[in-house]
Amino acid sequence: MAIVLGTNRYGKSENRVVRINKDTDRHEIRDMNVSTSLYGDFEEAHTSGDQANILPTDTQKNTSFVFAKTVGVSSIEEYAQALGKHFLEAAPPATRSQIRVQEYAWDRIVVDGQEHDHSWVRRGTETRTAVVTVEGRGDDQQVWVLSGLEDLTVLKSSGSEFQGYLKDQYTTLKETTDRVMATSLTARWRWSDTEGVDFNAVYDSVKALCLAAFARHYSKALQNTLFVMGQDVLEAHPQIAEIRFSAPNKHHFDYDLGQFGLENNNEVFIAADRPYGLIEATVTRDDAAEAGLAWQDARSFV
Amino acid sequence: MAIVLGTNRYGKSENRVVRINKDTDRHEIRDMNVSTSLYGDFEEAHTSGDQANILPTDTQKNTSFVFAKTVGVSSIEEYAQALGKHFLEAAPPATRSQIRVQEYAWDRIVVDGQEHDHSWVRRGTETRTAVVTVEGRGDDQQVWVLSGLEDLTVLKSSGSEFQGYLKDQYTTLKETTDRVMATSLTARWRWSDTEGVDFNAVYDSVKALCLAAFARHYSKALQNTLFVMGQDVLEAHPQIAEIRFSAPNKHHFDYDLGQFGLENNNEVFIAADRPYGLIEATVTRDDAAEAGLAWQDARSFV
Amino acid sequence: MAIVLGTNRYGKSENRVVRINKDTDRHEIRDMNVSTSLYGDFEEAHTSGDQANILPTDTQKNTSFVFAKTVGVSSIEEYAQALGKHFLEAAPPATRSQIRVQEYAWDRIVVDGQEHDHSWVRRGTETRTAVVTVEGRGDDQQVWVLSGLEDLTVLKSSGSEFQGYLKDQYTTLKETTDRVMATSLTARWRWSDTEGVDFNAVYDSVKALCLAAFARHYSKALQNTLFVMGQDVLEAHPQIAEIRFSAPNKHHFDYDLGQFGLENNNEVFIAADRPYGLIEATVTRDDAAEAGLAWQDARSFV
Amino acid sequence: MAIVLGTNRYGKSENRVVRINKDTDRHEIRDMNVSTSLYGDFEEAHTSGDQANILPTDTQKNTSFVFAKTVGVSSIEEYAQALGKHFLEAAPPATRSQIRVQEYAWDRIVVDGQEHDHSWVRRGTETRTAVVTVEGRGDDQQVWVLSGLEDLTVLKSSGSEFQGYLKDQYTTLKETTDRVMATSLTARWRWSDTEGVDFNAVYDSVKALCLAAFARHYSKALQNTLFVMGQDVLEAHPQIAEIRFSAPNKHHFDYDLGQFGLENNNEVFIAADRPYGLIEATVTRDDAAEAGLAWQDARSFV
Repeated sequence: MAIVLGTNRYGKSENRVVRINKDTDRHEIRDMNVSTSLYGDFEEAHTSGDQANILPTDTQKNTSFVFAKTVGVSSIEEYAQALGKHFLEAAPPATRSQIRVQEYAWDRIVVDGQEHDHSWVRRGTETRTAVVTVEGRGDDQQVWVLSGLEDLTVLKSSGSEFQGYLKDQYTTLKETTDRVMATSLTARWRWSDTEGVDFNAVYDSVKALCLAAFARHYSKALQNTLFVMGQDVLEAHPQIAEIRFSAPNKHHFDYDLGQFGLENNNEVFIAADRPYGLIEATVTRDDAAEAGLAWQDARSFV
Repeated sequence: MAIVLGTNRYGKSENRVVRINKDTDRHEIRDMNVSTSLYGDFEEAHTSGDQANILPTDTQKNTSFVFAKTVGVSSIEEYAQALGKHFLEAAPPATRSQIRVQEYAWDRIVVDGQEHDHSWVRRGTETRTAVVTVEGRGDDQQVWVLSGLEDLTVLKSSGSEFQGYLKDQYTTLKETTDRVMATSLTARWRWSDTEGVDFNAVYDSVKALCLAAFARHYSKALQNTLFVMGQDVLEAHPQIAEIRFSAPNKHHFDYDLGQFGLENNNEVFIAADRPYGLIEATVTRDDAAEAGLAWQDARSFV
Repeated sequence: MAIVLGTNRYGKSENRVVRINKDTDRHEIRDMNVSTSLYGDFEEAHTSGDQANILPTDTQKNTSFVFAKTVGVSSIEEYAQALGKHFLEAAPPATRSQIRVQEYAWDRIVVDGQEHDHSWVRRGTETRTAVVTVEGRGDDQQVWVLSGLEDLTVLKSSGSEFQGYLKDQYTTLKETTDRVMATSLTARWRWSDTEGVDFNAVYDSVKALCLAAFARHYSKALQNTLFVMGQDVLEAHPQIAEIRFSAPNKHHFDYDLGQFGLENNNEVFIAADRPYGLIEATVTRDDAAEAGLAWQDARSFV
Repeated sequence: MAIVLGTNRYGKSENRVVRINKDTDRHEIRDMNVSTSLYGDFEEAHTSGDQANILPTDTQKNTSFVFAKTVGVSSIEEYAQALGKHFLEAAPPATRSQIRVQEYAWDRIVVDGQEHDHSWVRRGTETRTAVVTVEGRGDDQQVWVLSGLEDLTVLKSSGSEFQGYLKDQYTTLKETTDRVMATSLTARWRWSDTEGVDFNAVYDSVKALCLAAFARHYSKALQNTLFVMGQDVLEAHPQIAEIRFSAPNKHHFDYDLGQFGLENNNEVFIAADRPYGLIEATVTRDDAAEAGLAWQDARSFV
């Protein structure tokens, strides 16, 4: 038996790259948090300490900023692909790269009914994400793209029930036909193919479809709502292979006003932080192509 | 010399009170974080441990929820006043109360161009605040009201300079006539008189005035921008005595692309977390009435 | 093509279970954050909304607290195994369970040189973790156990270099033979077999080995340090199959005092938040058994 | 009536200054978060935008790092005094300065029973703080010093009761003679005079006295415990004029195991995040000198 190096990667995390486009007086802004990782032949760096194969994380940082200038950021998915492919050229010992991006949205400030040219207020509703994994070179190169959103916080004060569930000796929950349902949605969708995709337009569409499904659908459980969201997204976007959701059930408990002789008809709630239900589901095409490395270490490594 | 009890207060912090109004099918939502404090004759509770004068914090919690039902929340300022006055009735040993409220805004989800009746998405741009302090009973009772906002994050990519400043032997900063200026604004305004005030409408107006001033004003420094904001607010709202701002200068540094033979014409920035400049200022009427207890312990006690 | 449900799970996250053992006057405390997830036949819950197969997350919460009483918490690994196995009995439609636990350590307060019987101060150095996955029933049941630690923050002010690395056109980093190296270590180790293991003792040993390796080893890079840590752990503990690390390189940059005519011999640093290098590696036995489901969704699902 | 500038200040917040002393092979470390503010004649900077009186926050940052080298950090209180006095020399328009410091403690890593010379693990139990305010120049100069600690998290599983309190129609709390009492202590003490004070030694003593009082004292309420802590500190340290505490009552509720036929003799608790009681008190000498500007804006401005 020997002790050996297993899977590993390294890179620069959370580069706060802000790109302003000033081609016209009406500026455009892209505000990103960019993380890069390289996989490859880095055994010596670990075992003997020889760094000859290591392109420094500081160089990866520089490159993230350079590419915001030279390639630009028409979408975070395209920017990340350019960066991911570049690193395999710049670092011959690397065999795979992964670029993870968060993007913060800004709305133009409206002054006298007009959108301002170069002043913004941070939107704050949700964060857009992308994860791009590139493996190999030349004709063998493969690219996997995930798009997503995080922390889209929604609540409905009617149109949600929870009943008919399994019970055991530790079940004390009361069934309900009317409750507050709230969640902070995280979703990622995997592209089967990105030919001709307008990532920005699809992002807006997926977000709108999820919001509409949440609002419109009478929910028998958060699972039920997630499935409807996923269906709507896959039906509208044939190039999306699957979509995964993670949705904390942010509990809003009826406050017991009966002890004071008051009726609480689902009007006064205490919003709880912890614990929360955590509902996680994948909605997929039954003929979806293999995911390959798309999800590999996309969230974290350990 | 003796060791004695000095100023003290106690209460329940961060009650997450959510109030849904269901009088019609078009629900309304108020989502609050409510903190209460009582000042008064609590010496024995500290020195001998006798709790006879202490209305429990648990009772204060219950009352926060009860009042969301019985009084309702037409505005957080009105809800806080009702609660603050009540505690002086409920707890005879109390001589002063302070109610601090944060409110999170929700926008209706739009489905097929229509605002939904009972489904919302959290706005996320900023948090609304109120601090109400009540002292005394009957004809001697005094009430001070602060309204405010927190974390209104704004950025402008032109129309901001910083030059002509004082220099000493440790000054290395380069003067600039074009920079990104960004901040996460906290503001609180003190009411000289609240007779007939529509707190919700004024809140929207103050926020809009601050945003417009930020966008429109050519800024020679963040101090300069804050003063213009304050002027606009005081001119528009005669019942506001003063407004205080705290504004971190969220630095966006030009990334040095010159080392790679590239020009960076204020297009690519690294957004820094820490350190940040912190600019704090009060804009006031020169004949403003005394602030009294309005600002006392409004942020924190220690 | 059909749109179908893919992988999914649900459960209760972040149950803050505190267990005090009062069998003698010298109390013992276990302070945990417990998350539970069930996998299984939950298709109807998603598609038709029928919840008949769903044991509520509220029941999972109750059970987490009940088991702290009935089974106790001799170690988080043993507690999690009991809980994970129980859920497969309680919920026949479930085919797999995963229990994730964080544990916060408390030290006894020392009064007059003596450890106090029932008063503690929170340690704060690091968080202990466990992830247990159970699949199947009866003789076919398989159990995977991960143990770990998070946020063990360490720094060395000498004995670390970084040089000899790969350079490209975007490389501007200066080589250094003396730097501050600091990280906030996350590690997880996978058990090949847990027969007779004293999880608490091994935890203390792994932590001590990692700290000692960090201190003693002259580091040519953070990769190099992680590998040495992993070797020491695997050599000392034959039942550990592999250990994975995630280590942010928390940069401490020499502050440029030269511009003020002062020498900075690695004495004054600015500690940077973002970006940070992120070094991630696995150290494993070359004959380690297959990991199976041990790492599956152990961090997060999406 | 005119609209004018009121109180204001500006500076650089959260400079992460790390100072390593390498005079011998046994290094010493000071890890600080330093914030500086200047008050003075800054009216033009706000009204006309003329920055001639403004010493940039960037210069204040540079100076924070320079002083870590030239003056050193024998204690954060002494470092802050040197910095605060310097700014009144460097910036003639300034009339007052305030320096706020947080310090993070590190323990030496122990290898083979020996403390390592240059490797540390972050302690994590609490953060040390100081606030120094300097006003005026020459013989008229006044200096106020606050020392403190934050986030010292303690818990006792016996020796705490809560009963005999005031009740109204919204009081539902049950009286208890045995409960868990836990808090995350913030304290600040004001020096009447700092002549000959060893700030580091007193810090250790105050922390030890607070911990011992918490452990030893049978508590009739958190108020009662805070008062005892304050008494012990003032009795031991004649140069401390007063001490202020802010202590969240971190509730640990008995989990209701009775519904499952189990007894819960204060053994299984759910630790709640929000809401929490917030108990705040000052313990002072009855002949303490006036506080002057010591507490002015010490926490925050707005």
